[in-house]
Amino acid sequence: MSNFDFTDHSHRRYNPLSDTWVLVSPHRAKRPWQGAQEEETKTDSPEYDDKCFLCPRNRRSTGPFNPDYKDTFVFPNDYPAVKLDQPEYHSPASEDDDLTKRLFKTQGVRGNAYVICFSPNHRLTLPRMDLPSIEKVVDSWQSLYVNMQAESREHKSSPYQYLQIFENKGAQMGCSNPHPHGQAWCLEAIPTEVDHELKSMGKYSREHKGCNMLADYVKLELQKRERVVLENDSFVVVVPYWAVWPFETMVLSKEHLISLKQFGSKHKTDLADIIKRLTTKYDNLFKTSFPYSMGIHQAPLNFADDDQSYYFHMHFYPPLLRSATVRKFLVGYELLGEAQRDLTPEQAADRLRDLSEVHYLEV
Amino acid sequence: MSNFDFTDHSHRRYNPLSDTWVLVSPHRAKRPWQGAQEEETKTDSPEYDDKCFLCPRNRRSTGPFNPDYKDTFVFPNDYPAVKLDQPEYHSPASEDDDLTKRLFKTQGVRGNAYVICFSPNHRLTLPRMDLPSIEKVVDSWQSLYVNMQAESREHKSSPYQYLQIFENKGAQMGCSNPHPHGQAWCLEAIPTEVDHELKSMGKYSREHKGCNMLADYVKLELQKRERVVLENDSFVVVVPYWAVWPFETMVLSKEHLISLKQFGSKHKTDLADIIKRLTTKYDNLFKTSFPYSMGIHQAPLNFADDDQSYYFHMHFYPPLLRSATVRKFLVGYELLGEAQRDLTPEQAADRLRDLSEVHYLEV
Ligand SMILES: O=P(O)(O)O[C@H]1O[C@H](CO)[C@@H](O)[C@H](O)[C@H]1O
Ligand SMILES: O=P(O)(O)O[C@H]1O[C@H](CO)[C@@H](O)[C@H](O)[C@H]1O
Repeated sequence: MSNFDFTDHSHRRYNPLSDTWVLVSPHRAKRPWQGAQEEETKTDSPEYDDKCFLCPRNRRSTGPFNPDYKDTFVFPNDYPAVKLDQPEYHSPASEDDDLTKRLFKTQGVRGNAYVICFSPNHRLTLPRMDLPSIEKVVDSWQSLYVNMQAESREHKSSPYQYLQIFENKGAQMGCSNPHPHGQAWCLEAIPTEVDHELKSMGKYSREHKGCNMLADYVKLELQKRERVVLENDSFVVVVPYWAVWPFETMVLSKEHLISLKQFGSKHKTDLADIIKRLTTKYDNLFKTSFPYSMGIHQAPLNFADDDQSYYFHMHFYPPLLRSATVRKFLVGYELLGEAQRDLTPEQAADRLRDLSEVHYLEV
Repeated sequence: MSNFDFTDHSHRRYNPLSDTWVLVSPHRAKRPWQGAQEEETKTDSPEYDDKCFLCPRNRRSTGPFNPDYKDTFVFPNDYPAVKLDQPEYHSPASEDDDLTKRLFKTQGVRGNAYVICFSPNHRLTLPRMDLPSIEKVVDSWQSLYVNMQAESREHKSSPYQYLQIFENKGAQMGCSNPHPHGQAWCLEAIPTEVDHELKSMGKYSREHKGCNMLADYVKLELQKRERVVLENDSFVVVVPYWAVWPFETMVLSKEHLISLKQFGSKHKTDLADIIKRLTTKYDNLFKTSFPYSMGIHQAPLNFADDDQSYYFHMHFYPPLLRSATVRKFLVGYELLGEAQRDLTPEQAADRLRDLSEVHYLEV
């Protein structure tokens, strides 16, 4: 008989996707905070800002003018982290001694980076957009995936292997422009996080008679319901059992989909619905434009259409812990040791579940 | 013949310690920055602050008074992430279905957390302290390690397995009090990062005739010298080949030491010297009290004294990129994909190497 109390006693939970642990110290939420206070995200931007690089008709820093776009607008990043136009990398193998080869493993990496403006309206954010407009965003993500995959299949010389779609929202999450936008980086490598997830899911499948880890996970969470925040016909949102960020969530498809390519129009409407409802709850939590980084994990571009070994999902990583201005810092112990959180995922899910789905600025 | 240019073309470098890659995009440093500006760390604190929980003679938030300490002062954290006093965790195995057992892996975790005040002087930081005072800090770290190990060996019931010593410096790194201090969390688990390093080093050793990865790495960096920032008889500081943070460094012992326990007085003086010189260079880089998280990786407490499979080192993770107020954000792509950096480790090492070892406030 154990009187172990998950809401009081420290414990570790294992993240089977990334093969890491998180230290949960629920009693620690009681400590006083004398540290940094964040600036609150402004919610009073104008609808059009003539200094913004992303507003319709404006000139971007590198020269070209934006079109007078009406819904979403996708263009190549002016300062991309990866470019197509660079020489191939050949490791200087011949001159190298053994130690160099062993310890300095290097790859050249070409690719392309896109910016996706969600709306021409400078002051909007996903929770404040209407459903059809969010569906346009989902459409643009899907087109990017489909196009990049086609390119990587048709042209043998194309370097594309993976498309990472993401959004940094809010200055606290390194976003340098409040105009609603996300990014997509497409490159000739499977990024570390995705690679680790693929490996973990492969191992799970080998150990459990071909089962898919995330399909099993969805089933389990839908049965327990403790960590379910919201759902619709096609998707469920949970605070994962192993969440690191205080109000971290995962969006998972109920069916086994592997990428946006498999999305029909019902899936797209349903994903837009989930994004609107989830980000509205987030804004309502601390009555602020809630900062986060979010992104899509889906099948690498060279996956066969019937390869079921991955599973479509999105991660939302929001930093706020106690209020619009007090965030969680993942620093010393987290960087050197392992992630640590101050409330349980179940407590976070309870709070998110209880929040209204009507935006606080609209009531 | 490749005209691949490491200072212009994107590439990935492999971190063999943590089994992750970092995307290096050196050309990206040119992009304009319109994002968040940090508050600069204040350098004008008083020598004594009567509201500070860490100053000598003051009352802490939970009641006790601090002694009138004269050099370092170590005490148990008032809001520890881990405690000794909690029941053991027993997984409710019998009731559980298969999926729960597979996907919700949990461990109870007991332990202890300490705060280490580096100095009674509220306004000092490591680079502004004199060498003998920094040696006292190293002494206190060593005593903690030795004592915790003795406890874990003598008392079979002791849960201690690993001692994570670290410092969060500056509000930007989640430090809630400017009084110079670090922490030590001691717990009944090997934290994820250390566990991954141990596994990687074990694999390396099996693949390379018993060689130690970090011993090899020190040898290689001392031979190439491109990434060496500074050194003395016992230690070398490098910007690792696979550095993630813009000015990340690693401190490595030149001899194969596995923990602070093996430090003689020469090692302790030399480590104090390295810490003073490195943190002085950091402050000089942007003429500010340079924020960072740093910490020690050393042998788990239950390692035999002659077990050579780990290797003493320290990591410094500083967030600043361009100035005292513009930091690197490890956000969207980094959280979903993999770490990305905007200048090469060699460029960072060059800049750090060229900086004076006299503190800018003392010239
Ligand atoms: O223990 P402190 O200084 O109150 O807290 C700081 O360091 C801890 C350990 O890295 C982190 O978990 C906290 O988020 C951070 O604010
Ligand atoms: O591309 P942006 O928005 O200029 O930059 C932001 O997102 C990138 C991708 O996550 C990060 O590497 C940058 O540190 C961050 O400031």
